[in-house]
Amino acid sequence: MISFLNDYSEGAHPEVLRALSEHNFISTPGYGEDPVTEEARSLLRKAADLPDAEIHFLVGGTQTNSACIASLLRPWEGVISAETGHIAQHETGAVEASGHKVLTLPAPEGKLRAEDVREVLAAHRANEIREHTVKPGMIYVSDPTELGTVYTGAELSALHGTAREFGIPLYLDGARLGAALAAKGNDMTLPEIARNVDVFTVGGTKNGMLFGEALVFSTPGFVRDFRYLEKQRGAMLAKGWLLGLQFRTLFADGLYFRLAEKAVRLAERLSAGFRESGYELFVESPTNQVFVLLSDGEARYLRGKYAFEFWEKAGEGKSVYRFVTSFARTEEEIDALLGDAADAKTRSDAQ
Amino acid sequence: MISFLNDYSEGAHPEVLRALSEHNFISTPGYGEDPVTEEARSLLRKAADLPDAEIHFLVGGTQTNSACIASLLRPWEGVISAETGHIAQHETGAVEASGHKVLTLPAPEGKLRAEDVREVLAAHRANEIREHTVKPGMIYVSDPTELGTVYTGAELSALHGTAREFGIPLYLDGARLGAALAAKGNDMTLPEIARNVDVFTVGGTKNGMLFGEALVFSTPGFVRDFRYLEKQRGAMLAKGWLLGLQFRTLFADGLYFRLAEKAVRLAERLSAGFRESGYELFVESPTNQVFVLLSDGEARYLRGKYAFEFWEKAGEGKSVYRFVTSFARTEEEIDALLGDAADAKTRSDAQ
Amino acid sequence: MISFLNDYSEGAHPEVLRALSEHNFISTPGYGEDPVTEEARSLLRKAADLPDAEIHFLVGGTQTNSACIASLLRPWEGVISAETGHIAQHETGAVEASGHKVLTLPAPEGKLRAEDVREVLAAHRANEIREHTVKPGMIYVSDPTELGTVYTGAELSALHGTAREFGIPLYLDGARLGAALAAKGNDMTLPEIARNVDVFTVGGTKNGMLFGEALVFSTPGFVRDFRYLEKQRGAMLAKGWLLGLQFRTLFADGLYFRLAEKAVRLAERLSAGFRESGYELFVESPTNQVFVLLSDGEARYLRGKYAFEFWEKAGEGKSVYRFVTSFARTEEEIDALLGDAADAKTRSDAQ
Amino acid sequence: MISFLNDYSEGAHPEVLRALSEHNFISTPGYGEDPVTEEARSLLRKAADLPDAEIHFLVGGTQTNSACIASLLRPWEGVISAETGHIAQHETGAVEASGHKVLTLPAPEGKLRAEDVREVLAAHRANEIREHTVKPGMIYVSDPTELGTVYTGAELSALHGTAREFGIPLYLDGARLGAALAAKGNDMTLPEIARNVDVFTVGGTKNGMLFGEALVFSTPGFVRDFRYLEKQRGAMLAKGWLLGLQFRTLFADGLYFRLAEKAVRLAERLSAGFRESGYELFVESPTNQVFVLLSDGEARYLRGKYAFEFWEKAGEGKSVYRFVTSFARTEEEIDALLGDAADAKTRSDAQ
Repeated sequence: MISFLNDYSEGAHPEVLRALSEHNFISTPGYGEDPVTEEARSLLRKAADLPDAEIHFLVGGTQTNSACIASLLRPWEGVISAETGHIAQHETGAVEASGHKVLTLPAPEGKLRAEDVREVLAAHRANEIREHTVKPGMIYVSDPTELGTVYTGAELSALHGTAREFGIPLYLDGARLGAALAAKGNDMTLPEIARNVDVFTVGGTKNGMLFGEALVFSTPGFVRDFRYLEKQRGAMLAKGWLLGLQFRTLFADGLYFRLAEKAVRLAERLSAGFRESGYELFVESPTNQVFVLLSDGEARYLRGKYAFEFWEKAGEGKSVYRFVTSFARTEEEIDALLGDAADAKTRSDAQ
Repeated sequence: MISFLNDYSEGAHPEVLRALSEHNFISTPGYGEDPVTEEARSLLRKAADLPDAEIHFLVGGTQTNSACIASLLRPWEGVISAETGHIAQHETGAVEASGHKVLTLPAPEGKLRAEDVREVLAAHRANEIREHTVKPGMIYVSDPTELGTVYTGAELSALHGTAREFGIPLYLDGARLGAALAAKGNDMTLPEIARNVDVFTVGGTKNGMLFGEALVFSTPGFVRDFRYLEKQRGAMLAKGWLLGLQFRTLFADGLYFRLAEKAVRLAERLSAGFRESGYELFVESPTNQVFVLLSDGEARYLRGKYAFEFWEKAGEGKSVYRFVTSFARTEEEIDALLGDAADAKTRSDAQ
Repeated sequence: MISFLNDYSEGAHPEVLRALSEHNFISTPGYGEDPVTEEARSLLRKAADLPDAEIHFLVGGTQTNSACIASLLRPWEGVISAETGHIAQHETGAVEASGHKVLTLPAPEGKLRAEDVREVLAAHRANEIREHTVKPGMIYVSDPTELGTVYTGAELSALHGTAREFGIPLYLDGARLGAALAAKGNDMTLPEIARNVDVFTVGGTKNGMLFGEALVFSTPGFVRDFRYLEKQRGAMLAKGWLLGLQFRTLFADGLYFRLAEKAVRLAERLSAGFRESGYELFVESPTNQVFVLLSDGEARYLRGKYAFEFWEKAGEGKSVYRFVTSFARTEEEIDALLGDAADAKTRSDAQ
Repeated sequence: MISFLNDYSEGAHPEVLRALSEHNFISTPGYGEDPVTEEARSLLRKAADLPDAEIHFLVGGTQTNSACIASLLRPWEGVISAETGHIAQHETGAVEASGHKVLTLPAPEGKLRAEDVREVLAAHRANEIREHTVKPGMIYVSDPTELGTVYTGAELSALHGTAREFGIPLYLDGARLGAALAAKGNDMTLPEIARNVDVFTVGGTKNGMLFGEALVFSTPGFVRDFRYLEKQRGAMLAKGWLLGLQFRTLFADGLYFRLAEKAVRLAERLSAGFRESGYELFVESPTNQVFVLLSDGEARYLRGKYAFEFWEKAGEGKSVYRFVTSFARTEEEIDALLGDAADAKTRSDAQ
């Protein structure tokens, strides 16, 4: 069974495992205050061209999102998000559990639009009884979005402009940031993204690590006492160097970018192949997620050999399915899937 | 520099790393719903003789404690703890951050006494305006305690009796449970501990794993919807099988117990050696933590080659220092430390 | 200036003030444990035909809503509400501040539909990764709704059936319950409403009291330890008898219902009069809120003598404005407003 | 039965009721944004000699304490309090329910000592792993304390100095502030108290009002967005003018101070009388609470005609009981009680 279920079905890149083995018996200070982690911070600062950034390494995405949001909001403030946003849909209300409302906006192709955000912020400011409503205190986007789409520089910059106009931070969830950077159509470098937000994450779990998210506050002093919050929320790893070591390995010579590149190229190959065989794509995702419409028969046919996720019903007896690629997949596996998909289409047409 | 700073300064037992490498490219379902994790649960159920226990694997201790407590309390309920308890002192108010007060009691040698707990519970029940005070809803102990001491079967059983009498759960934090089981003076097996509490943890971070705590609800149905809470708190690891795999490795043939045994035997050797050289021990800790009184000169002398923690001032120009052993230390390292400690004492006496 | 701004612009019915003066120097136990409050509870139980209901009196609506919701939900559970619901829009995220997400649904004319709720509940149950999403744990409606509309018996019964099918409570916010009962089109008595929900409130602030909401749990034992929660949230009034006394006054001989009746009849007169003068109503509200479309000129003309609230823009140079009646308004005041409204329309048409 | 149970057993001073009646039918804006409330703010600013203070009126004490604390702390910060403090003992963990730990210190006679506070703050600052512990973010005192004692100017000033040295606010809970100002031994005026803290309350519930606490932030801009928090916590009264009106009445010509003066003088008469009859006082309380030791027989004898509270056991067959005076008590009632107390003592001695 070849898995296209997601990009975290396997472990880590072998280089990461090798680093773990090599470092294993070196006694190292705990809680992320060790030289290896400091090296990892330096490498990330360099990659993002943010010499003074404050960087924390956490284990998982939900943890990182909710800690970041809680670190920047006051109790009566909420966070603006696309209604499809991960924090709005798939984190079991972690933001609300910290006391903050997620203020959702419709978001075509998963992307929040600056003009919509501006309207909400202006309306709140103009509201005479605004204290009866949640104060928008932060903007959350993810890049790529939940639909695999990518913000352009102009879009992100407009959002940042709006954030600045109203004096609130813009936070970019980069759980799959590598894929965004490798996407066709992406017109930003990592430093450009970094300059267009106030805080962002660089996800490792879905791109070559066992686990790990880097939380990067672009401006020093932007957040206060984050380590207290991190510890309080159970998000400070005892053997914190496990995070530093993995990030050091991936950013020492650009492995992080190469792995994302590989995943995205495989997804492109997959998209193109599906199209060639006559399949329709649900959304133009330039990253490592491919959303394709399959009939029930086609899906059944492929289920035998491949794992992939049902996404939603799509009418005319078809449904959307998601296929995710990663560094752990190979061209051979893509081609095998495409071969079988072509067969499924033929059989399906024959019926 | 040889580290006695704590038992989580190094990585994992080599068997664990080997298992990680072997499993690395096997595609595995996420979030702890995979066969490896299920095997680990079975092994733990067997080790604790609890065929129906509900078991969750989490990454860290603070996370596990606060999630467990939040899963069992209502907003107006608090948890009774020794005033030296980890949740009371060293988790940055994680329990309070979930809305619950930690109700502390003095605890000689770090151990909560059933009679003290009973008094608090009875006083609350008798209080006419009890709704103006926090309702004690749970009892928290750790075994070993923060001072390295161990509960006897009689002590734990008395606490459990009190808990049952008042209809509230008894939770045992076993971050170093292996050391408690290996301690001289411990008179309980793992199944006996398991039967004398309602929920407990089996710590892996400090005994051979990269990270990992098993949270064991002895009675099925005791907790409801724990996976929702786990996800909400960012405590559900995407690659959950990393936890299952480590626990499977340590419980497949008793490695967990052998590693703890080694650490405790090293600590005994260390305690005996310190005493032989004329050092006074601060507390009779039968587990893998040794608390010894050193003069400033003695501490300075040892600081050059060994890492260890200042604990507290002790009068007469001396202070308490903590030396922690683990599976990663060796007899040779203990003996080297003891040799230098003897030298330090001699020099110190000569002055 | 005559106020149609809301139904809480004035103090209390004179009977209430008289009762306060008479009781003022009688020493009375605090915190709602006094005989007067107990009498009020009895009167309400009788009025709702719920001999065993558990009743608490609180000061304000937001407080009551969020305390009630927090008393019944677990941390990972959310409450389903109309997207126009008071808890969703106008309580500054009080529910989220307690850690719970408000799960909103579109609601035509402000009313939640059983079939929509059922769909959400069924979808959650069917979701394979449901623990990644908030668990719907409760249904919230208000009657009248935010748009002044009223649930029919069939509608409420259908919602209750859905709630029971999925084993979650249905909570009815009756901040203006009197007005619902007095509305044309309402086909339920108070006992019928009470039987069709699990918990509801009877609002006093907007119907003759200085302040006060009764929170009624229909089934005894439905909620546990509510007084602890009440005290913890600062919602337990020291001189609790102030609440009991007011409720006793209004329910001793049906004054509560007569005051609501008066407010609703005045609103009907107002609606009819606006229509006669050629004004369009925004929504058919059978309760004490009238939503009418005014041109800017008409609004300006009336602003001089009357206070009323801008609601929203409506196109064609018109806006919706809300006029609220209460027991404190008189027929003469209604007629004065209608006279001026007729003038405004004439002037407006003349332009 | 004459009540000495507490100082909130009766309603309001008749002037307050008169004001309520007079204002009852004047339409007034809601939520504390009305001219009457603004007048009350001006009167309080004048009384405290704080021309720019930011003042909010809330209904109850627990509500006010927890809202104030939540408005000034970040999630990982706690509040330092005497272990006998109201927030530590009698608010059902309201502070913890907001996520903050109450950091308690022993407090002789109920008073927090600056040197103890300083030690805690310095120790935290010096702690190398301070982020594993709660950050002290605020100091809470009440004046009078829970034992009826009063801070001297020197004591309060020392606490303020410590607060400033460490850059955290000092909050004074003045639920019975009037009594503190009227106490023998008090050496501060209201403006002096106001200058020695950063935020304080002026309690109305226990001194002539139906309910009401004024929360005074001495420095403008010290708190941000308090009205959002107030609304979110259900602490913003719809008919907010009820609070303003009561405070205006009590501060228009010093009635607040006269009522407190009366209560304290009655308590002095009571203390002196108890002593004359040979009773021992538990603590030297110069305010309106008298703590006296009674034998069981004496207590039983008085129970028939007077209501008072059991405080704690005191050894030798005696217990401490609390008698509270208020503006609603009279000299005649005090003398009646003292007469009976003298009789009880005689009978008791005769046995």
